[in-house]
Amino acid sequence: MSSSINKKLLVAVQESRRFMVDCFTAVNVPQDHAKQMADLLVAADYRGHFSHGMNRLEMYLNDLTINSTDGAAVPKILKETPSTAWVDGCNGLGAVVGNFCMDLAIKKAKQVGVGWVCARGSNHYGIAAWYPMRAMKEGLVGMSMTNTSPLMAPTRSKEAALGTNPLCLGVPAKNDKFLLDMATTAVAVGKIEIQRRKGAPLPDGWAQDPDGKVTNDAELAFKTGCLMPLGGLEINSGYKGYGLGGLVDILSGVMSGANYSTKVRKWTHAGANTAADLGQVFIAVDPNCFAPDFEERMCDFNARLRGCTPTDPAKPVLVAGDKETINMKAVDEAGGIEYLPNQLKTCEILSERFKVKPIGFV
Amino acid sequence: MSSSINKKLLVAVQESRRFMVDCFTAVNVPQDHAKQMADLLVAADYRGHFSHGMNRLEMYLNDLTINSTDGAAVPKILKETPSTAWVDGCNGLGAVVGNFCMDLAIKKAKQVGVGWVCARGSNHYGIAAWYPMRAMKEGLVGMSMTNTSPLMAPTRSKEAALGTNPLCLGVPAKNDKFLLDMATTAVAVGKIEIQRRKGAPLPDGWAQDPDGKVTNDAELAFKTGCLMPLGGLEINSGYKGYGLGGLVDILSGVMSGANYSTKVRKWTHAGANTAADLGQVFIAVDPNCFAPDFEERMCDFNARLRGCTPTDPAKPVLVAGDKETINMKAVDEAGGIEYLPNQLKTCEILSERFKVKPIGFV
Repeated sequence: MSSSINKKLLVAVQESRRFMVDCFTAVNVPQDHAKQMADLLVAADYRGHFSHGMNRLEMYLNDLTINSTDGAAVPKILKETPSTAWVDGCNGLGAVVGNFCMDLAIKKAKQVGVGWVCARGSNHYGIAAWYPMRAMKEGLVGMSMTNTSPLMAPTRSKEAALGTNPLCLGVPAKNDKFLLDMATTAVAVGKIEIQRRKGAPLPDGWAQDPDGKVTNDAELAFKTGCLMPLGGLEINSGYKGYGLGGLVDILSGVMSGANYSTKVRKWTHAGANTAADLGQVFIAVDPNCFAPDFEERMCDFNARLRGCTPTDPAKPVLVAGDKETINMKAVDEAGGIEYLPNQLKTCEILSERFKVKPIGFV
Repeated sequence: MSSSINKKLLVAVQESRRFMVDCFTAVNVPQDHAKQMADLLVAADYRGHFSHGMNRLEMYLNDLTINSTDGAAVPKILKETPSTAWVDGCNGLGAVVGNFCMDLAIKKAKQVGVGWVCARGSNHYGIAAWYPMRAMKEGLVGMSMTNTSPLMAPTRSKEAALGTNPLCLGVPAKNDKFLLDMATTAVAVGKIEIQRRKGAPLPDGWAQDPDGKVTNDAELAFKTGCLMPLGGLEINSGYKGYGLGGLVDILSGVMSGANYSTKVRKWTHAGANTAADLGQVFIAVDPNCFAPDFEERMCDFNARLRGCTPTDPAKPVLVAGDKETINMKAVDEAGGIEYLPNQLKTCEILSERFKVKPIGFV
């Protein structure tokens, strides 16, 4: 949140959600599914991850309009054991598939200790953290991963063959938490866009040029669309980030029988004319199956990390998820989410296009 | 392997193993446990990871001599559900604890789909890949993670609060495999030692100086002992590597009730006077619980990655585990493992100290 908040651009969390529910129902998504999607997207904005929030609304609506996603589809279980399930998302909305699978994993974890659910036939499921957060509410440890459209060049490769493939681990702690949600690329495309708009160079290790060399040219990097894995160059262990991207794709795409690697379609703003058939995995583990007092120890674990002497006293050491907590607090204090003018312009257009009540300001 | 192999330094794999078994039994480790440790260590050398092979023998022997590790200890199950087990390693040898836990996870995965086993009271368990490899032999996907002594500075921190905390994923494929074994620091200490011996500078993002700034001075970095997480600097998403190091510690140390973060002792060459009480996690998943023909798809997945156009035609794109396969082939062709003269000198000293038959050469 900027320190000088422009009141005109502040949207209450509930109003942002209302607008998105209305948009989804306008394209014939059942009310319950529309709510699940709106909850997911507004959570991203509330947490400060604007790229994964209302910013994605138009693309989802485009996919629904041309029927490349089935807004009414209900996931179904194809195969089950006490601790696993294989689910067909039936080309449904990401949140609908993800919530279904995570809740199934939670149920199994409560019964036998671990629930491990793989889905094929899914679509973009927003912030990966959304699903483990459901497990955390039940006192469980949660994980989720998804594959995505090819955008990352394997170490030594000139071309992209894996997506940004995020992984998330959510861990409950007594009055606290640890919530890691990270792409396995060095940075997301959004960060390159920001440097490009600023006219600023890219640091080494973010992106490649068409010859496969690291580039500092944000414009060229944006056009090439070839991100480097976490770690960047091979000498800085970029092959580890590449390996992690592979890990995510294997556990989500290959294991579920969905698309994987270069089989995943490119996702365009206009929507795609084929089903995405993304793969995802949702894992829940009951920490009570192991040493007692887990949440107390997690508090101490976090305290040891946050208590490290900072290199710069103005920048305290954080634990995964702290940035998002700070952002949510700022939204609460401001009374709403501060969207960029561009985003609100898009909302106006969507409002007219789908005959939905325009978004209201605080 | 060097291209000009010095025959005098070549040790057959079986002879390396024999020497290590003899050393362990000389310090009263039961034969079966000695074999498990020797198998683990020689596998590291065979795969080209010399830092985790015979290089560690002297430290293990020192720990056993001063009784900070119990060479005869047998792990015991403290708590069990159909898919989980909580194990006390009873301060036993890493391989003994790890093999016990992984085999238990495999048994559970075959019964209910997933086995998730956490161990407290363990010791250094060598290459993380050793345990998932056991799962792969059974057609299962395996994972393992361990915490280690503090050596990594969290992003923004001046001091170390997490270990190199490796994670491993092993995946079977038809006549192929995917085997990722990576520390969550940018590099291991060994790589800094190599630059130091060469008198060469460090790339940005490997290590910090005592003020918490990134340093290119290998000598200073070695003395400081503060590695940076995978990703390096905050701008290059080092906080993701830091988050992954946390993930490993939570799933291995915190969940098992072992030591974690700064509670883990420093490990010195001379051996430590307290038990390590490391935490580890071993996971096995049966891919047959999900989409059929998993191993066939894994082959195609690997082929898509290896088939990427390389930036430098002389350096083909690899898949996790390929480097180790290449190394094992070179060892087989040479007829033995080529140890460094320093290592062989250490073996001579151990041979005299423990009255063990000296190592023989090919």
